Formats: sequence, structure tokens, C-alpha cells
Amino acid sequence: MKPTGPIPPDFQWRDGALMIGGRSADEWIAVAGDTPLFVYDLAVVRDRIARFRAAFAGVSLHYAVKANPHPPLVAAIAPLVDGIDVASAGEAQLALDAGMDARRVSFAGPGKRDRELAMAIEAGITLNLESEGEAERALAIGRGIGRTPRLALRINPDFELKGSGMKMGGGAKPFGVDAERAAPLVRRIVAAGADYRGLHIFAGSQALDAEALIEAQRSALALAARVSGEAGVAPPHVNLGGGFGIPHFANDAGLDESRVGGALSSALSHRDPILAEAEFTIELGRWLVGEAGVYLTRIVDRKASHGETFLIVDGGLHHQLAASGNFGTVVRRNYPISLTKYSDSAKVEEVTVVGCLCTPIDRLGDHVGLPEAKVGDVVALYLAGAYGASASPQAFLGHPPPLEITIDGTRIL
Amino acid sequence: MKPTGPIPPDFQWRDGALMIGGRSADEWIAVAGDTPLFVYDLAVVRDRIARFRAAFAGVSLHYAVKANPHPPLVAAIAPLVDGIDVASAGEAQLALDAGMDARRVSFAGPGKRDRELAMAIEAGITLNLESEGEAERALAIGRGIGRTPRLALRINPDFELKGSGMKMGGGAKPFGVDAERAAPLVRRIVAAGADYRGLHIFAGSQALDAEALIEAQRSALALAARVSGEAGVAPPHVNLGGGFGIPHFANDAGLDESRVGGALSSALSHRDPILAEAEFTIELGRWLVGEAGVYLTRIVDRKASHGETFLIVDGGLHHQLAASGNFGTVVRRNYPISLTKYSDSAKVEEVTVVGCLCTPIDRLGDHVGLPEAKVGDVVALYLAGAYGASASPQAFLGHPPPLEITIDGTRIL
Repeated sequence: MKPTGPIPPDFQWRDGALMIGGRSADEWIAVAGDTPLFVYDLAVVRDRIARFRAAFAGVSLHYAVKANPHPPLVAAIAPLVDGIDVASAGEAQLALDAGMDARRVSFAGPGKRDRELAMAIEAGITLNLESEGEAERALAIGRGIGRTPRLALRINPDFELKGSGMKMGGGAKPFGVDAERAAPLVRRIVAAGADYRGLHIFAGSQALDAEALIEAQRSALALAARVSGEAGVAPPHVNLGGGFGIPHFANDAGLDESRVGGALSSALSHRDPILAEAEFTIELGRWLVGEAGVYLTRIVDRKASHGETFLIVDGGLHHQLAASGNFGTVVRRNYPISLTKYSDSAKVEEVTVVGCLCTPIDRLGDHVGLPEAKVGDVVALYLAGAYGASASPQAFLGHPPPLEITIDGTRIL
Repeated sequence: MKPTGPIPPDFQWRDGALMIGGRSADEWIAVAGDTPLFVYDLAVVRDRIARFRAAFAGVSLHYAVKANPHPPLVAAIAPLVDGIDVASAGEAQLALDAGMDARRVSFAGPGKRDRELAMAIEAGITLNLESEGEAERALAIGRGIGRTPRLALRINPDFELKGSGMKMGGGAKPFGVDAERAAPLVRRIVAAGADYRGLHIFAGSQALDAEALIEAQRSALALAARVSGEAGVAPPHVNLGGGFGIPHFANDAGLDESRVGGALSSALSHRDPILAEAEFTIELGRWLVGEAGVYLTRIVDRKASHGETFLIVDGGLHHQLAASGNFGTVVRRNYPISLTKYSDSAKVEEVTVVGCLCTPIDRLGDHVGLPEAKVGDVVALYLAGAYGASASPQAFLGHPPPLEITIDGTRIL
């Protein structure tokens, strides 16, 4: 058997049934009407927000909506956070529809189109500029429509988040302006009469190592102070990025966020005077919602081939591409997985859980240990709250889209 | 600079403009109205079908619609081929909507749901059974709705397609029934009164080596004869699979299909008498349509970072996941890429072409040589006719879906 990642501790068993919030997984399927089904438990998200607040007093929290744009979930998160970070005009509209004040929405992303810049400026959303060219386009569009654009500058940091799943800083990158070119661009933005909103420094993602995050945040603070000093402009706002990881695989341990928060608090108390009045923000996506989601998919076939047992489910990589290992991952490893029912008497067997797609890459659990299962039983795949439904090729092979529900206790939101 | 794959020879330049069918790429964008735009050129598909017919006289050709389900393309292909292979009820409906006779539609895929089996049996579509369990479900559903199901058996072959991009045979697999268990299942299907349609043997995909395909087809013929002999039942139909590759990367050479056809013709002329009356089919997706598609995406930003030049386009991996290297690929390599305009005087520069998504994996051309380009110019990414729009996470980051057109000469179909 191959190992699987740890099931998030937020889920309990009652009378042998997996509970998600106030109902069993199978009850949620009955209520929603079918599988495959994503269930997002708001209580888990609230718990993560509370943990963040406890660890990072005085630091603002933004939700990176790219992690999960399910509208009822975004609407429930909006009043609990201090802002929403978006990566397209579509996500910006989603944030506004969720009731977020436009002044608390910031829009990062290379390749913003003119019509996206116009939409954001019109709405009063902050643009995190990714290049000199984008700055000039935004200034021109603001002049054209007679609105003062709210502009922040994303810096391509000259350091990296160590142990990061995806490195966003260090070396040549499509994101942000190189650190040594940032100060002139800040001055240009201010001189052009824009509403200068500050700096955005994002060094990486999916880090589980507190020390690496502490070091990256300290480097980001120092970089913000250096650029602001060079520019001679105090930033109203500094977005320190995110990068908090969650444990996906065997031997991963969760991030100790309180240690990161303590170190950041200490670093902020000694910050450069030019940053004295700045608001500091951390933007989180995966860490807030990733563990809140469970993907439920029913076993359609059970078969043997050359002595191995395959469970074939009605879901697959068209809904959970990351779990199949085919979304930016080099080595495929098993996400946490279980059945939705558990009995003490059930024999554990080694099985491979595959999706219903006609491709050998549609593999959700590779040689995992599960209680003996039959056709009609339901498999739960965890860590389905982030980069699941929205990051997967839903139309591949013509299957219908998955169902999604956001729940709170026994209610569907 | 890193190498790129070969641009398909089907595309020419006229007065410095990339031609797709009877119009330039930029004219198609003007007609379609925007970028990102997929253009599928039916003339290229017709050429591939003609090449198949010339090489494989007497062998039937099925279109594996999973490669590209764009409805006007499917409708145009349907009258040119002998059948359509589908992998879901959604694709089955698409094939019927394209005017294909249900008796020429076959449905393979692990994890067919009961309602998919019922839809297929009701419509008279052939089911390629993937397991004993699925066979029993299909027989029961046929009895339940009073229809005789058309059933073929997919065999998990005991050999593999060498050099295959994705191995589908050899060893434990979720696809088909192990070869040694096939004959009893054929007898069971016949005894249960189903309309037995024959055998389906698929050993792999994306092979460029003619010898490997010749060997796999010979092995498939031998396996079909062996299973049929053991079962004592002559198959009306034998699907030999597909697996014809197209060149994606530098140093890839196209498949010599005439050599494969010649060898198959010779093998068929010596086939076992139990296969004397069988219709033989090859099912192709990527080889028919992959080179017919071009993905056109406009440059939104041009920036420098640490001495490297980035072109940021309005498309990305949300439309062309395979080209980014994030769809079942271990080592990322460059697909063929060009601008849509060419001038003898333009200096070639080394650039990295990235999509507009906020992730470092959204890379469409890595350190490629392109004529100096500016914002507003258009990049053409080739081999976009198969596993492009439909196999990519279109909803990721909230961008709108791409435009798609199927063209013939100067017309949009």
C-alpha cells in the first residue's frame, strides 16, 4: 500500500458515518440529489479565520477568491475578512456580488486586459500593477473615463519563499516589477495623480515550514521599507502575500501559524518608520478553504485486473485535477481519502480508486488501503475546498459539472 | 533558446500573414470578434481522413470525439467517417446530434453510470463493456427497458503499445477485461441474448513509431482471434484501437501511416478464419484533428524581468492545459508557436510567452525565439485541435471561455 495524506481533523465519525458539519456525507448527497458532490463546510473556514485572527492581531486578512469561487461560500466569507483578492474581472464581479466593498477588493494578475482595467477603475477596485506598461495603460484608462485609479504596485521580490510549492519570487518572473525598478514606478504613479495604494509582495505558496514564512515576511517588510524609502513615499497598504500551506500528503505536518504570527508581530513592532502608518495584509486562499471541502463520488464499478482491485467512481480528474496529480505536480502522491461509511468489522483491502474518464491519468487513489467497498458506496476525497471544481477541466469527455454546496451546520447556504 | 515543436505543414504564409484555410489568422479574429480564439480547419481534417483512406483500404475509421467535441466540427466529420467513439452519455448525444447513425456509435469508458447505459441501450448505441460487473448491469437494464443491448467487449490487452504517450495495456488496468477472462464473458453476453458486436482492443496512444503500431496491431489481431476461438464466437467487429501520434516537440517526426496501413493489410490477409467476416476499425482522435487547430491569443503586456523578456497573452492554460505541460506530462517542452505576422526585417528575440493566469505554471512558450513583438500582436499556438479547449480548466480564475470556430476555406461552419 502507498501512504495517503492526513484527513483534516475537522471531520468526525458518528455511528460509522462520516459527518460534514451537522449531517452525514450520505445525507448531504441525498439533499443535494446526486454525486459527484463537493461539500464546503463554512465552520471549518470560520475556524481557520479565528486561528488567523488569534495569531495575527492587527494584521488584515484577505481571501484569495481564486482558491474557491463558489458564490455562496464567497458571500459567507466576505463579511468575515477584510478584503478579497481577485485575478480577473470575473472574480472582481464575484467579490462585489458577495457584498465586498470595492475599496477592499484588489486585483492582481499579469495580462489584465484594457476592459478589465476599465471595469476595476470604474468600480473603485485597487489594481496591483504587474509592469510599467500596465501602469501606463491604467493611468490612460483612468484619464479616459475621468476616474482616479487606485493603484498599488506588485514587486517581483528579490528573495523566495523556501520550501514553497510554487515559487513566485527570485529571478526572472512574469509577476510584478523587479525590486530595483519599483521605486521609480511608485514615483511615476504618484506624480500621475493616481490614488497610490501601496505595495504587494508575493513570494510563494503552499509552504508548511513556519521558519520559511517568517523569513519571507521579514524580507518582504524590508523590501517594502527599502522601495518606499527610495521612492520617498509611505505606502498606505502593504500586502505581504500568503503562502500558508496545508498538509496534502503523508508525513506533511500542518503549519504552526501562531509562530508565524508571533514573529510577524515582533518584526512589525520594529518596522522602518516609513511603514509606520501602513495597513498590513496577508492574503490566503488554500489555507482558509482547502480543508473545508470534501469531494464525494460514488463507486460505479469494482473490478479486478491482474490481481489488483480497482474501484471506479463517477467523479474524476475533470473535477479534482490536483488530486490526480496532473496540475503542476511532478510526482503523483495520494491525497487523504476514505469511504463515507466505516465499520469495525470491515476488512481493509488495497485498492486503486480511478475516475470515470477514459485516460490512465485519472487516478484519485493509488494503491490505498480502504475498507472493503462495493458498487454504490461513496468515496470521500479530502482537501477539495481549494483548486478543485474551478481548477479542473469540467467539460472533458462531456460529463456534467459536479454539484457544489456550501453548508453551515445542517443548512445549505 | 529552447527548441519548439514543428509547425504543421498545413499552414502557409501569405504576404507575411499566417493563413488558416482561406483567410489570415487576423481576419478570423476580426470575424470571430475577439481572442483567445481556437480555429479548426476542416481542410486539414479532410486531408488526414484522405491519408487514412489511402493507407488503410478496407479498414473502417472511427472518430474519437473526446479529442475535440466542437459541435460544428463533429457535424462536419460525421459524414466522412464510419463511426464515432464516445466516452460519456454527453458525447453520445453529441454524436447523434451530429447525424451519426446510432449503430455506428460506440461507447467505451470505465465507470459508465446506469443512466448512461440506459441512454445508450435505448438509442441503439454499442457499449464497449469494461468489466463483468458492467456487463451484468447492461444486460439487466436491457431487460428492464425491453431492448436488446448491442454489446462489445473491451479487452485489457496482454501487450503494450511501445513508445506510447499513454500506455493503456499491459498489466493491471482499469480499462477492459483482462485477456484471459474475455472468452467466458463473450459467451455470457451471447448466451444472455444480447446483440454481440465484437471486441475492442486499445493498447496505447500518441505513438510516432510505425513499427510499434504495426506490432501492436498484429498483437491485437492475434488476441482477437485467440479470444474469439476460445469463446467459439466470431466477432462481427474488431476495434483495433488508435494510438496514432502527431509530432509535438522538437525532433519528433510524423508517423508514416502508409507503412502501418501496408503492414495491417498484410496481417489481415493472413488473419485467422474466425475473423474472416469481421469489420475492422481504427479509432483516431488526435491524429485527425490535432494539427487542424490553431489557438490565437493576443499579447496584453510585454515586460522585462532580470534581463529576460516576457510576452503576456490573453489566453493561457485555462484553454490550452496540455501546451503548458500540466496535463499528464512529466517534462514540459515547447509546442510549436509563432506570431501571426512575419516580416523579413524583424529581429528574432528570445522570449517567454506566459498566459494571463496568476500562476507560474501558466507558461505557453519557454525561452522561445520569436520575431520582436509588441502589445496587440497575436501569438499562434499550434496543435490546438485536440485536447485543447475541452480538456482545460476553463473556469479557473474566472476568465470567460475561449471562442471556437470550425472553418472550411473562407467560411465558418
